[in-house]
Amino acid sequence: MTKQGFDLVLRDAVLATAGDTCRADLGISDGRIVQIGQGLAKGLCEIDVAGRVVTPGGVDAHCHLDQPMAPPVKLADDFHTGTRSAVCGGTTTVIPFAAQRKGGTLQAAIDDYHQRAEGRACVDYAFHLILTDPTPAVLNEELPRLIEAGYTSFKLYMTYDALKLSDGQILDVLDVARTHGGMAMIHAENSDCIAWLTRRLEAAGRTAPRFHAVSRPTLVEREGAHRAIALSELIDVPILLVHISGGEAVAQIREARAKGLNVYAETCPQYILLTAADLGTDDSYFGARCVCSPPPRDKSSQEDIWQGLADGLFTVFSSDHSPFNLTGEDGKTPGGKEVAFRHIPNGIPGIETRMPLLYSEGVLGGRISLNRFVELTATQPARAYGLYPKKGTLAIGSDADLVIWEERDFTLDNAHLHHAVDYTPYAGMTLRAWPAMTLLRGQIVWDGTHFAGAPGQGQFLPRGLPSLAPPSARRGAQPAWR
Amino acid sequence: MTKQGFDLVLRDAVLATAGDTCRADLGISDGRIVQIGQGLAKGLCEIDVAGRVVTPGGVDAHCHLDQPMAPPVKLADDFHTGTRSAVCGGTTTVIPFAAQRKGGTLQAAIDDYHQRAEGRACVDYAFHLILTDPTPAVLNEELPRLIEAGYTSFKLYMTYDALKLSDGQILDVLDVARTHGGMAMIHAENSDCIAWLTRRLEAAGRTAPRFHAVSRPTLVEREGAHRAIALSELIDVPILLVHISGGEAVAQIREARAKGLNVYAETCPQYILLTAADLGTDDSYFGARCVCSPPPRDKSSQEDIWQGLADGLFTVFSSDHSPFNLTGEDGKTPGGKEVAFRHIPNGIPGIETRMPLLYSEGVLGGRISLNRFVELTATQPARAYGLYPKKGTLAIGSDADLVIWEERDFTLDNAHLHHAVDYTPYAGMTLRAWPAMTLLRGQIVWDGTHFAGAPGQGQFLPRGLPSLAPPSARRGAQPAWR
Amino acid sequence: MTKQGFDLVLRDAVLATAGDTCRADLGISDGRIVQIGQGLAKGLCEIDVAGRVVTPGGVDAHCHLDQPMAPPVKLADDFHTGTRSAVCGGTTTVIPFAAQRKGGTLQAAIDDYHQRAEGRACVDYAFHLILTDPTPAVLNEELPRLIEAGYTSFKLYMTYDALKLSDGQILDVLDVARTHGGMAMIHAENSDCIAWLTRRLEAAGRTAPRFHAVSRPTLVEREGAHRAIALSELIDVPILLVHISGGEAVAQIREARAKGLNVYAETCPQYILLTAADLGTDDSYFGARCVCSPPPRDKSSQEDIWQGLADGLFTVFSSDHSPFNLTGEDGKTPGGKEVAFRHIPNGIPGIETRMPLLYSEGVLGGRISLNRFVELTATQPARAYGLYPKKGTLAIGSDADLVIWEERDFTLDNAHLHHAVDYTPYAGMTLRAWPAMTLLRGQIVWDGTHFAGAPGQGQFLPRGLPSLAPPSARRGAQPAWR
Amino acid sequence: MTKQGFDLVLRDAVLATAGDTCRADLGISDGRIVQIGQGLAKGLCEIDVAGRVVTPGGVDAHCHLDQPMAPPVKLADDFHTGTRSAVCGGTTTVIPFAAQRKGGTLQAAIDDYHQRAEGRACVDYAFHLILTDPTPAVLNEELPRLIEAGYTSFKLYMTYDALKLSDGQILDVLDVARTHGGMAMIHAENSDCIAWLTRRLEAAGRTAPRFHAVSRPTLVEREGAHRAIALSELIDVPILLVHISGGEAVAQIREARAKGLNVYAETCPQYILLTAADLGTDDSYFGARCVCSPPPRDKSSQEDIWQGLADGLFTVFSSDHSPFNLTGEDGKTPGGKEVAFRHIPNGIPGIETRMPLLYSEGVLGGRISLNRFVELTATQPARAYGLYPKKGTLAIGSDADLVIWEERDFTLDNAHLHHAVDYTPYAGMTLRAWPAMTLLRGQIVWDGTHFAGAPGQGQFLPRGLPSLAPPSARRGAQPAWR
Repeated sequence: MTKQGFDLVLRDAVLATAGDTCRADLGISDGRIVQIGQGLAKGLCEIDVAGRVVTPGGVDAHCHLDQPMAPPVKLADDFHTGTRSAVCGGTTTVIPFAAQRKGGTLQAAIDDYHQRAEGRACVDYAFHLILTDPTPAVLNEELPRLIEAGYTSFKLYMTYDALKLSDGQILDVLDVARTHGGMAMIHAENSDCIAWLTRRLEAAGRTAPRFHAVSRPTLVEREGAHRAIALSELIDVPILLVHISGGEAVAQIREARAKGLNVYAETCPQYILLTAADLGTDDSYFGARCVCSPPPRDKSSQEDIWQGLADGLFTVFSSDHSPFNLTGEDGKTPGGKEVAFRHIPNGIPGIETRMPLLYSEGVLGGRISLNRFVELTATQPARAYGLYPKKGTLAIGSDADLVIWEERDFTLDNAHLHHAVDYTPYAGMTLRAWPAMTLLRGQIVWDGTHFAGAPGQGQFLPRGLPSLAPPSARRGAQPAWR
Repeated sequence: MTKQGFDLVLRDAVLATAGDTCRADLGISDGRIVQIGQGLAKGLCEIDVAGRVVTPGGVDAHCHLDQPMAPPVKLADDFHTGTRSAVCGGTTTVIPFAAQRKGGTLQAAIDDYHQRAEGRACVDYAFHLILTDPTPAVLNEELPRLIEAGYTSFKLYMTYDALKLSDGQILDVLDVARTHGGMAMIHAENSDCIAWLTRRLEAAGRTAPRFHAVSRPTLVEREGAHRAIALSELIDVPILLVHISGGEAVAQIREARAKGLNVYAETCPQYILLTAADLGTDDSYFGARCVCSPPPRDKSSQEDIWQGLADGLFTVFSSDHSPFNLTGEDGKTPGGKEVAFRHIPNGIPGIETRMPLLYSEGVLGGRISLNRFVELTATQPARAYGLYPKKGTLAIGSDADLVIWEERDFTLDNAHLHHAVDYTPYAGMTLRAWPAMTLLRGQIVWDGTHFAGAPGQGQFLPRGLPSLAPPSARRGAQPAWR
Repeated sequence: MTKQGFDLVLRDAVLATAGDTCRADLGISDGRIVQIGQGLAKGLCEIDVAGRVVTPGGVDAHCHLDQPMAPPVKLADDFHTGTRSAVCGGTTTVIPFAAQRKGGTLQAAIDDYHQRAEGRACVDYAFHLILTDPTPAVLNEELPRLIEAGYTSFKLYMTYDALKLSDGQILDVLDVARTHGGMAMIHAENSDCIAWLTRRLEAAGRTAPRFHAVSRPTLVEREGAHRAIALSELIDVPILLVHISGGEAVAQIREARAKGLNVYAETCPQYILLTAADLGTDDSYFGARCVCSPPPRDKSSQEDIWQGLADGLFTVFSSDHSPFNLTGEDGKTPGGKEVAFRHIPNGIPGIETRMPLLYSEGVLGGRISLNRFVELTATQPARAYGLYPKKGTLAIGSDADLVIWEERDFTLDNAHLHHAVDYTPYAGMTLRAWPAMTLLRGQIVWDGTHFAGAPGQGQFLPRGLPSLAPPSARRGAQPAWR
Repeated sequence: MTKQGFDLVLRDAVLATAGDTCRADLGISDGRIVQIGQGLAKGLCEIDVAGRVVTPGGVDAHCHLDQPMAPPVKLADDFHTGTRSAVCGGTTTVIPFAAQRKGGTLQAAIDDYHQRAEGRACVDYAFHLILTDPTPAVLNEELPRLIEAGYTSFKLYMTYDALKLSDGQILDVLDVARTHGGMAMIHAENSDCIAWLTRRLEAAGRTAPRFHAVSRPTLVEREGAHRAIALSELIDVPILLVHISGGEAVAQIREARAKGLNVYAETCPQYILLTAADLGTDDSYFGARCVCSPPPRDKSSQEDIWQGLADGLFTVFSSDHSPFNLTGEDGKTPGGKEVAFRHIPNGIPGIETRMPLLYSEGVLGGRISLNRFVELTATQPARAYGLYPKKGTLAIGSDADLVIWEERDFTLDNAHLHHAVDYTPYAGMTLRAWPAMTLLRGQIVWDGTHFAGAPGQGQFLPRGLPSLAPPSARRGAQPAWR
């Protein structure tokens, strides 16, 4: 120990990491884990874990907080409410998105986003960039400089008119990633197909929420995935495909992996727990609550996603938390109206339920191991985005971000949650576990009943480069064009 | 700590597990790891690791020691020399094979094998069973009883006249595994094809060692793998395919995984470092040293094997140590003669080089991460065969089996090795790392220059059931025939 | 013309071959097609086809007639009744099986079979050999001699205790095919798996006909197909996999083709028209009528089979006519009893319905073209087994074996059929077409209402080597072992 | 016969169609085939074929003649020289492209193109449309009207700035095809990737012809193919992918077929006979002669293409004849200069060599059957584009377009050819066959030594809808969006 004694000791915990599970005490000083072992010396504080499972605090690498939207639509959660919600569900680090305005700089987006976060965040946080305008200045100067400064990941959209890049623009950005490092996240869906189907459906008066799923069939995602993989293969640079939903896209990724391409992938709770049926019927607006992109699929795709969670195909399990209210001017009823699916804000809340849902259905449901749970929710997100080993694991020197799990059945209700959203799509579901306690850098921030943290407690995290073990060991020839 | 102070403290180590890498001290008492952390209290002994990498001691889950052979052929290594060799290369646990004699009981094989091991083993050891005669008594009584008693893995051969089981017999054994647990290891090659090709080649006078590879082309292994997978699928029980060598078999395993089958696989150093070219020319006997089954393949298969090591397809990396002398009556020149390939004992030594080779070529060669190295050489072998967490990791409560690595280049020579074999197929190769020290339950048994252990120091390890995270999360329907 | 005028002219026919459809007259002399064209000269006889479709007479390359069985079981059809039935359904050539007795010669089987056919056959016929005992004498002398003599195809079983060959024996036979030509037909199912499941099911008292399908799940066929393909690949010789039933086997064949292997395949009406549900319930014996091997599968496999019929995966569409009575001592109730599924004779009648069923469901059902119908039922069977161009097409010089089709709906009843079997599994089905007339070498043998041929009218056909266009153009390297 | 006697009789021909080969006489009246048979009555003219092979005249469904280019580049062949060249190589029908000008109508393109063809064509001809500007007027009125009028195919480009459509525009056109019929041909390469690589290569000064291939790697075609297939799948309408060159695209098509999608494909001589090596070295301009798009690939892709030609994957074998001179202002040296690869006109001549090359290398080289040759070069192109049975086969009533083949070895030289291009990429190659005679509607137009036809002899062919047997028999569910 660098100083006398521990600030805090957890006694008799079942400590789970990506690699191991062992029963031991855990000693914390200055917010970091400093010893793990049997019979640790007494700390200033002590918590008797009594044989319960302790995992690293979650890293939610895909969530949207206080991100500017086109009025009247507005995200219900700012950094305060969003990260408060995170922490009550076991997540201690979030990486939301600083989105470049077309015509604007990345720096402007970052500056604005720092202002929104500062003094409000209840957990530690970093920013992904969203690139919408990769001008020469951005590509040659700003992006390399920002990667150097610790903004080491950037999301690229293949769809949404306001956000999407052409294939050529994506190549430009991937080439920067090849030179300067950093992780490119890609939202892969074929924009034209979605627009084409949407026009057809609208023309036919098929505008109920359920047609949202009809406008984005699985092949639209499969095509996007195949194309993104081809672009990454051309530049010979890793990519991470976000929020994979359908079995067809899973198959593309599997094939890419078998060929030795460094293609990583993320999925989310909605793709193992919801289906297109949750979007309702031709006549009902109820399903608006489950409108997100890509949409939930079918049972068969759910199985494919589970398979990928179990066998290592997926690298990251995120929430894609997109906190829109169901009612009111600013959410799923924009302007207070039940609108055509095209106008329903895309996304569902989930920052607080992400870890309990996977713990319940995955670990206790017998589909994934406890170690794989840790890997998917904390270790690999931290590695993928340059936060490891400070975040994402229980190792000596790592931040003492911890979740103590309580395994017991209860029925989920939105009233349990701490976001500022008026619903959860998982209401009524039986969960089998919830955090009994969450610690952020050694401080109790959720005690199993109450939020015990404070806005401003969260710190900004500059990041290093990704440190994932590459899925590929192949030594490709240099691309012919280099 | 259960007692005052540590017996031994390793200072300033880079501790690598399957999940993490961190810099810390490691405290040992009574042969077990009891604390990991910064600034541990002083131990009775201290080792200054000075920032070198420390990994768990290796678990070599596939090696042949003092196993009875048909005279004059004889394994050169008994438990003493074999495990001495193991320890000098960083391996602290071995699982050789107690082979049932046709007409004999499993218990007889075990009793005999205990006699051979006792008082001689320098590392801890367990026994796999080899089933050659699955009589009703074996299936209904002996095997279930032995699984209960801690002999929880059994190898089945699809080839070799003296060993092979029919598909029906394999189904019988797999059905026992379904009921009683345990891991079935399968040597998957099509016996008839090999025999047919061998007869043809012999008839044509093509008997040089290189024709050994011609007699076992990759499709022979692919067919065996496909069939073994089908049998496991029929019974709905996991299997582990041993010593996978060719890209075609890799593809079969990959396909099985994507379908959600619990098919595990092992590979060995010879399949990433040797090729069929090492078996020599039509006229030369030199290649006899590299005769093993399956034979080494080509560069393309080597890449496929590396890919599987990197991306998680392979669960276990073993030596398949088969210590035959090159010269003399008892080895590759049986009766002292250069014999036709069919009569050359199959197998090569490798118990000591297994870990240094993978560390050099894999970790330092940039093909796999250090964590994956630990997983392949120690953690997953321990999990696959019921030794985890006692063996295979650096966790609180685990045995203090440790390797401290020295990274420096040197040229390998058989004189460096501690087996009783008169050659190594890797002589002349440049290695980039070797254990600077190996500890078995907290005792130094290799000090970087000398073997420091003693015969009889190794203990027999009864085992539990496998605790691998299953690659599949699919919830199959019950087989129709149940 | 070699002589003055035509014996017979068909006027105004829509002539369909594997490659073309055209409207023309067709002139016949001496039993052969001698002219096709507009405004042919007048013949001694004339038939006004009035724009109906005329196809080549069918070649049923897989049917069992008067083949010796183990008493009391007996095939209901001999050459007389079986070929009478064939002709009334549009088939003018059959190739049943002369089965070697274990310990006996092939010649003995042929001699016996000629005796059974002579004077009884109503259509032209050839014999496949069934090899059950490939002794050196058979391999080195008898089989080469018989191939030379026109017995150019031989069936090999991977299952059935009385018939099956080991993998090594199959290699021996395939090697003869490589040297001497000839087509090896393989019944590919894993014998051990079937036996193992059968024992389990019997022990559990699950013996109703429906458990026949449970005892032969699709993976049992997939495994057999994969293994047969591997054996053929090893020897580098074409094979034809008979009666493919399941989607998993289809996928294996597809993969083999894509790799450039010359693997041909056959399927049968039962695999597009029946499912395992037709085998009844746990308590019912009714489904015994549909017991055949492989068993009917499910809707999904039916679609896979249709896909293969349409896209060229399948080479041959045969009946696998196995005429067992439902009632009585000699058929599905052996000894007059409702027996356990293992004792129910395997096979269903279908020699007469084969072509009308495919015409109805395939051509008129819009799933395959008329040309593909001809290819599957006549041209390619003739090519595969060395009968082309004498049989299987409408070309100048070919035998005038013809079917004139009547397209009209009717409900099938066993009373319509001309076999000696007491049921048809397709009773009650609506068919959309039936031959209005069948001609054998220019003679009317079925007039749409009555059988108009005679026993003994059929001639034995010695055959040449296969003349299929190989699906593969790859130029493989010489196998290393040659 | 509708009149007395034949205008012409071919005696003793080996007549080859897609389905059959037979030896017979062939009688022609009024330009059509009216009888095939033995001993035909005497004709006004007689040709003694003497047992040589006669195939249907070729249908070249992909060639560029007198198509307007951006100055100074110009196609060397107009309808006169191009179709003269065609006929001397055995092709009797061509389908070049009437290309819509952006902002212009389809009708204008057709009108202009008729003017160019009329009085000049030496073979029968039809026009594919090239759609570059699918305005609502084109989609809703002009295209449906033109399909009705017999312009039943249209080519869509995914690349080339002047021609390419967006994915949305392609969906619009495919939807018209679904409603009104017609065959959509797609040039599938990723435009952005090519542009990106081209910019990089140019910036690096890598502008020699060989870098043309580097700018269009196989994955660029694979991506285009995958995307085109997805669009066709979305609309549930057949497409035909033109000039497939690489093994990766072949794999995509194979996968689509196995899934039951109606995806057809075309390939060309350059992809079985040339490789990227033919594009020369970094310093040489010689390879400009082989610059075409997609570029020639490698030996492995050549094998994949051959495999697809043999096993039915490819539907059509075309020339993609693009007649640019090597020297001079208007061709491969635009403005008379050796320009950067980007400015070299893309394409090579091949309308005359297409059939002899495939006959030599495919039929006589043992890679495809004679029947498959006919199918690829004549029957299926005619079926795919609505010209069957008038064109593409030897059937009663079909046009008497015929090729009599002379099998003899000779060395190809550009002086042998009848195009107006100053080179052939195949100069120096040994061919093994050439037409001894070509007949167009019963008239001799090539006599083995001299062109014997005349400009204006060719007739315009309005076309019906495609009549290909669909590769798929699956009965898909109605798309959800309909």
